[in-house]
Amino acid sequence: MHVSDLDRYRQLRRELHRYPEPAWCEFYTTARIVEVLEERDPDALHVGREVLVSDRRTGVPEETTLDEWADRAREAGADESVLERTEGGHTGCIAVFECGDGPVVGLRVDIDGLPVTESESEDHEPAAEGFRSRNEGYMHACGHDGHMTIGIGVIDAILEGEFDGTLVACFQPSEEKIAGGEPMAESGHLDDVEYLFALHLGLDHPSGEIVSGIDEFLAIRRLQADFEGEPAHAGASPQQGHNAVQAMATAVQNLYAIPRHADGKTRVNAGVVGGGTATNVIPKEAFLEGEVRGSTTALADYMFEKAEHVITNAADMHSCDVSIESTGDAPSATSDEELAAIVGEVARTVDGVDTIRDFDELGGSEDATFLMQHVQDRGGLACYACVGTDHPGGHHSATFDLVEDDLRIGIEVLSGAIEQVGRDGVSPSGV
Amino acid sequence: MHVSDLDRYRQLRRELHRYPEPAWCEFYTTARIVEVLEERDPDALHVGREVLVSDRRTGVPEETTLDEWADRAREAGADESVLERTEGGHTGCIAVFECGDGPVVGLRVDIDGLPVTESESEDHEPAAEGFRSRNEGYMHACGHDGHMTIGIGVIDAILEGEFDGTLVACFQPSEEKIAGGEPMAESGHLDDVEYLFALHLGLDHPSGEIVSGIDEFLAIRRLQADFEGEPAHAGASPQQGHNAVQAMATAVQNLYAIPRHADGKTRVNAGVVGGGTATNVIPKEAFLEGEVRGSTTALADYMFEKAEHVITNAADMHSCDVSIESTGDAPSATSDEELAAIVGEVARTVDGVDTIRDFDELGGSEDATFLMQHVQDRGGLACYACVGTDHPGGHHSATFDLVEDDLRIGIEVLSGAIEQVGRDGVSPSGV
Amino acid sequence: MHVSDLDRYRQLRRELHRYPEPAWCEFYTTARIVEVLEERDPDALHVGREVLVSDRRTGVPEETTLDEWADRAREAGADESVLERTEGGHTGCIAVFECGDGPVVGLRVDIDGLPVTESESEDHEPAAEGFRSRNEGYMHACGHDGHMTIGIGVIDAILEGEFDGTLVACFQPSEEKIAGGEPMAESGHLDDVEYLFALHLGLDHPSGEIVSGIDEFLAIRRLQADFEGEPAHAGASPQQGHNAVQAMATAVQNLYAIPRHADGKTRVNAGVVGGGTATNVIPKEAFLEGEVRGSTTALADYMFEKAEHVITNAADMHSCDVSIESTGDAPSATSDEELAAIVGEVARTVDGVDTIRDFDELGGSEDATFLMQHVQDRGGLACYACVGTDHPGGHHSATFDLVEDDLRIGIEVLSGAIEQVGRDGVSPSGV
Amino acid sequence: MHVSDLDRYRQLRRELHRYPEPAWCEFYTTARIVEVLEERDPDALHVGREVLVSDRRTGVPEETTLDEWADRAREAGADESVLERTEGGHTGCIAVFECGDGPVVGLRVDIDGLPVTESESEDHEPAAEGFRSRNEGYMHACGHDGHMTIGIGVIDAILEGEFDGTLVACFQPSEEKIAGGEPMAESGHLDDVEYLFALHLGLDHPSGEIVSGIDEFLAIRRLQADFEGEPAHAGASPQQGHNAVQAMATAVQNLYAIPRHADGKTRVNAGVVGGGTATNVIPKEAFLEGEVRGSTTALADYMFEKAEHVITNAADMHSCDVSIESTGDAPSATSDEELAAIVGEVARTVDGVDTIRDFDELGGSEDATFLMQHVQDRGGLACYACVGTDHPGGHHSATFDLVEDDLRIGIEVLSGAIEQVGRDGVSPSGV
Repeated sequence: MHVSDLDRYRQLRRELHRYPEPAWCEFYTTARIVEVLEERDPDALHVGREVLVSDRRTGVPEETTLDEWADRAREAGADESVLERTEGGHTGCIAVFECGDGPVVGLRVDIDGLPVTESESEDHEPAAEGFRSRNEGYMHACGHDGHMTIGIGVIDAILEGEFDGTLVACFQPSEEKIAGGEPMAESGHLDDVEYLFALHLGLDHPSGEIVSGIDEFLAIRRLQADFEGEPAHAGASPQQGHNAVQAMATAVQNLYAIPRHADGKTRVNAGVVGGGTATNVIPKEAFLEGEVRGSTTALADYMFEKAEHVITNAADMHSCDVSIESTGDAPSATSDEELAAIVGEVARTVDGVDTIRDFDELGGSEDATFLMQHVQDRGGLACYACVGTDHPGGHHSATFDLVEDDLRIGIEVLSGAIEQVGRDGVSPSGV
Repeated sequence: MHVSDLDRYRQLRRELHRYPEPAWCEFYTTARIVEVLEERDPDALHVGREVLVSDRRTGVPEETTLDEWADRAREAGADESVLERTEGGHTGCIAVFECGDGPVVGLRVDIDGLPVTESESEDHEPAAEGFRSRNEGYMHACGHDGHMTIGIGVIDAILEGEFDGTLVACFQPSEEKIAGGEPMAESGHLDDVEYLFALHLGLDHPSGEIVSGIDEFLAIRRLQADFEGEPAHAGASPQQGHNAVQAMATAVQNLYAIPRHADGKTRVNAGVVGGGTATNVIPKEAFLEGEVRGSTTALADYMFEKAEHVITNAADMHSCDVSIESTGDAPSATSDEELAAIVGEVARTVDGVDTIRDFDELGGSEDATFLMQHVQDRGGLACYACVGTDHPGGHHSATFDLVEDDLRIGIEVLSGAIEQVGRDGVSPSGV
Repeated sequence: MHVSDLDRYRQLRRELHRYPEPAWCEFYTTARIVEVLEERDPDALHVGREVLVSDRRTGVPEETTLDEWADRAREAGADESVLERTEGGHTGCIAVFECGDGPVVGLRVDIDGLPVTESESEDHEPAAEGFRSRNEGYMHACGHDGHMTIGIGVIDAILEGEFDGTLVACFQPSEEKIAGGEPMAESGHLDDVEYLFALHLGLDHPSGEIVSGIDEFLAIRRLQADFEGEPAHAGASPQQGHNAVQAMATAVQNLYAIPRHADGKTRVNAGVVGGGTATNVIPKEAFLEGEVRGSTTALADYMFEKAEHVITNAADMHSCDVSIESTGDAPSATSDEELAAIVGEVARTVDGVDTIRDFDELGGSEDATFLMQHVQDRGGLACYACVGTDHPGGHHSATFDLVEDDLRIGIEVLSGAIEQVGRDGVSPSGV
Repeated sequence: MHVSDLDRYRQLRRELHRYPEPAWCEFYTTARIVEVLEERDPDALHVGREVLVSDRRTGVPEETTLDEWADRAREAGADESVLERTEGGHTGCIAVFECGDGPVVGLRVDIDGLPVTESESEDHEPAAEGFRSRNEGYMHACGHDGHMTIGIGVIDAILEGEFDGTLVACFQPSEEKIAGGEPMAESGHLDDVEYLFALHLGLDHPSGEIVSGIDEFLAIRRLQADFEGEPAHAGASPQQGHNAVQAMATAVQNLYAIPRHADGKTRVNAGVVGGGTATNVIPKEAFLEGEVRGSTTALADYMFEKAEHVITNAADMHSCDVSIESTGDAPSATSDEELAAIVGEVARTVDGVDTIRDFDELGGSEDATFLMQHVQDRGGLACYACVGTDHPGGHHSATFDLVEDDLRIGIEVLSGAIEQVGRDGVSPSGV
């Protein structure tokens, strides 16, 4: 890659870094990506409402919040026509490049930022170099600015290279809420994809290391439980209360005590809780935001059903009502060995790569699994690769950052793998 | 009482109603009361720091909050010299009127408002009549505006009447936090008080009803517990977490299960709780604001010790640290029969009073009990009377209000009782 | 009382002491009492099935247990005809003595023993004097042997004295299970009783002290909950289990946390629990024997309903079934002042009585309250008196004993009160 | 194998089946095995105290229980000299047969029965054929009678065959309590063993199936917690109680809620609990027998430490004392592939074997792992094989039984594997 090219990608990454937007509010980001894509003259460019099954979206913010972010995007210079196409929290886009008769290959990157206030320390490069977040309180603290940049870089490499096939480049919104994967997977645009690549930067792997395929994502399901009881004066008539905090606390205790399952890993967490208004009032309301996971989708479902059962009975025990809302989920998935092998093979030839790990567990969850499963269910293959990068702060921390030269590595590994798949498919010899 | 007098008191009440201030922030209120008192030319007028043992105060807000409220008071026209004397949250005042050689009689009213947003409904008289709170988000929702007005009215009646003795009129701050009673009780100004009267409007007693003496206040103790654990990724390494929410929930469950006590009533409530930051993070922090009560101070202490024990062990069980802060307390107290009898006797002669209840339990708590106990401990007598008033909304609700004519009843009952005590003391025949 | 009389009563008490029998198994005891009563030639003598509404009995042991105790009674010399009349656990009897046209006065004593192994210590008089329990593992450890003896003594005194009225002497079974009171109260034999006396020895009151009327019995309700889940191998397939011990533990935690009630005292206890078979099996079964109490019957009912609700939801939370059985109850009751005044008046004249307490709370429960309520509901009066006696060990302990001379005090106080009621009724002057 | 041989083994198995003895009480069983071994003229025969590190034993019954079982053994004809050598619960034996210069090969079988009452149904062969347990309430319900028989059969086959090496045949007591493995492993007799075989019948594998090596045993640790509080009358003075049942229930709730661990499987079970004496007494005592497991020994230790921590704090929370006793443990272990391969290879040649599974997880625990680890720690290899057999009832059930012809399969597979190891060791070609 030319130095001038790398400079261009660095520039793009920094520009995107300046405008982090939370899930379903990536209005500026989508507009900017659409602008860059249009410069590449795609054979098709689907935007916003066209790339999502609208009612499969979960966790979409209130309209006033959406409007605020749209206004910010407008002020930052977002194209009005894109704002129209993404109205109501329909963000993201998919570009299609037809480069020959070979297979249809997908690439998926994610585009949303996080509600994290970015560090102002001089040790933090974005602050020192002047590309710190301009959306105060929000930050690209998980590298999605880098993912998008790699996505554009891969398109450039494919267009300049000798790829024989069709590239479907997906810029997916709302990964942090594990909410964007399903509506995009079901949009129809991935129905013909035969090979799908997804990627992540970092994940505690240092610069120079490539994980050719993530072995196991935990399936995940999130929930929000809202308990409603009866308030009462805690001194004068405690027996008239239906104590929502007591119900919630009983639920918490018993959630963690859901039986372990012999079939594999399970997880449960009551991550955010609260309730009550004053010390002298029997609490009328309480809430619990939690999640369960499993090493298979069935295990996550087992945990979710148990969790619902526990919460429902805890509420009833204390004569409270409870509503339980499912607030996002993602299935488990595994990278196919055949594609991972190709990633590994290509990576070996890329300058700056010194270590290749064949497979690795993530221990976390990702909604790329919806897209992977969609492709795998139709007989295709999928692979989720990790491009190592030294990151000073951890993922989701105020000092997260990445090594910009590793963007090049990501572009070369992914575009190389896509080209090879286009050339040879996944023949036995390819493995 | 002259109609013109009643108009004056109605006017004063409405003025005070417009400027509700939370506990320890009654800067405008104190300044306005001082102004009104000075017009009565008291023999002594102690303000702010002079009426409080500063370090016995609990729950004093941050300095920035105090400053904000002082600024608001300044803007509303508070006298600068009073603002100086009340600096740092030293609110309230005590006026002394020497009217003869008879006994020293105290009167205590409270002056703080509540963090309640006042109703804007046309059915709500303060809104309809234009004296709704100007401190948005705060409200005199417990009648303290009326209490202060009665206090001034009683002084007027005493000065115009034939009281033989010394009147010590206490305008106590921070009742809602049960935090102002103790520092004022210990200030020295009540050391010579032989008879103390305190009062409350409403308490679900209708207009025309007088409770001559509250029989039993529950002793109360409040606490705040802050749990601190270790965060961890809920999917990747749950075992590295020390779960503060789990600790808090275990505490809640076991707090309500503290054994009932044979010696009398006990109460416990975990009124406000919260914790955690995200569904995928094992919660690092949680908190619990609670209270315990007992029909005696010893029972409240029993409950407090048990609560501390439960919370400490719940934290330790989940490898969390916890700090427990005592955030306010008030002892139990009982009205003396002799004074209550006088209140009842006088009330029978007051126009508009149709029902007199000899004694009644409050079921609640009050920090007037500190002043009552202080007087009773030194051989004096104390009585807490209730002046009924029809109130559309309940105490602490957005539509609480009072019948302004009942201010007159309060003034006549209390001033009559004080005069009678001055005249006869509490002779056996007086009972 | 003649010394020879006292000797007779001491003899009777010791004989009864030798044969303690548990609730519903008082076969020998009933037969022996019947024998003694027949010697007094009653106007009516109702035995066993005739004094109980059979299906109101709770906690009746298995038939094999009943048969065993009937056999023991037979071996000890019980009359075969009484054994026939008490078959199936229908124990107890009621004797009626018509002595004039005056009022119908009832006397109630209880007859069952306890599953306590009696002390063999030489310091324990029954062991030293050779009248220790011959039913190993059972003991008259609550003084019911003394109660029965006083009952017989009162009859003798009445028959020899000048009582004008009808005496209905009730020997009630199964007090320890609070199970005999209701079926006897509903038997019809108390329908005409105008004044009812009941009594207890000891209760931590020393010899020479009389409590003229117990003020407040806590109403009580007992329950047995049997949880049934699914067993599973704790290592190989924990998720297949429905954990009955977990359900029970959740219930225990939440039972103690039932909200305190403003209307008065409440109590709750999970007194006996158990469950599971092996450490490596998810427990299939668990049980909980508990009780709730309240200072009124309504409060006990409140607690019982809450307890059922908690237990049901705890079971369901862990996917277990549960059956909850009500295993005994007794209402609250209060002695009528008028009768208590007479007891106090008479007691003042009895040799050896040095202290009379007007009223006293029991803090416990008793199924005599069923009989008291039955009489009070029909317009009659009832009184439960306590006859003090120095007891070395506490009630229900292996070294409980009584001072036999206090039997005389009991006889004289109760027969005196009955005679006075027969003579004067309860005229205003009688109070 | 000759039919007459099989008859002999069937005979031996039935004889052993008649006298099941619980852990550490296998007095008759040891004596009978010693008798059978002596007929084989071993080069060394170590019995009782000689094969155990005495103070490493856990869960040894009270002396009176040991004496009772020793008496039963005596009555059943046990040799007095063996009874002497096994006195005090030192059961089991090890026989050594030197057959050449080849390697030292160990064989381990277990010998204890279970506290299960054997079925009397005619469908249950031991009942129908007259060899049902004569120790009522105890039963060989896990096939250890078959294991011992296979052990003897293997010795016979070795002695008759061409084994070149030394055979160390271990008859280990107290497997059901996972208590006999460690004291035998540490006895010194296994220090020179280069290859160790252990086996189990059944485990839900049908007749004709061989599992050549169990892949993963869960490490296990058992504990007994005894809570002691203060009793109190539940009605009169609940606050004086320190409620041991409440402490236990709090522990149960929080034991199941110990955080899941990312490193592998964890298990926890409060398998047997109990407490309290009467519904009207605040429970003074409670107990909890539980276990934890992990797919590694470190994970089991993690769970054990957490469990201790939870129990200790639950006790303290309710002001109870608690003593926690470790009542048995076994490490995790894995069969070595090289030995498992040999078992599989031999099994393929054995008549009646139709299926060979290479590896299988047990999901359970076993204290054979102590012996396996001891050998593996010193550079040797170990393998735990399973010999399938159709069993009508599940393991530990009253109708467990085995197909006696499968004893032959077990003998042939194990002796064949031992011979092959003696002949070739574990050369690469051997795998």
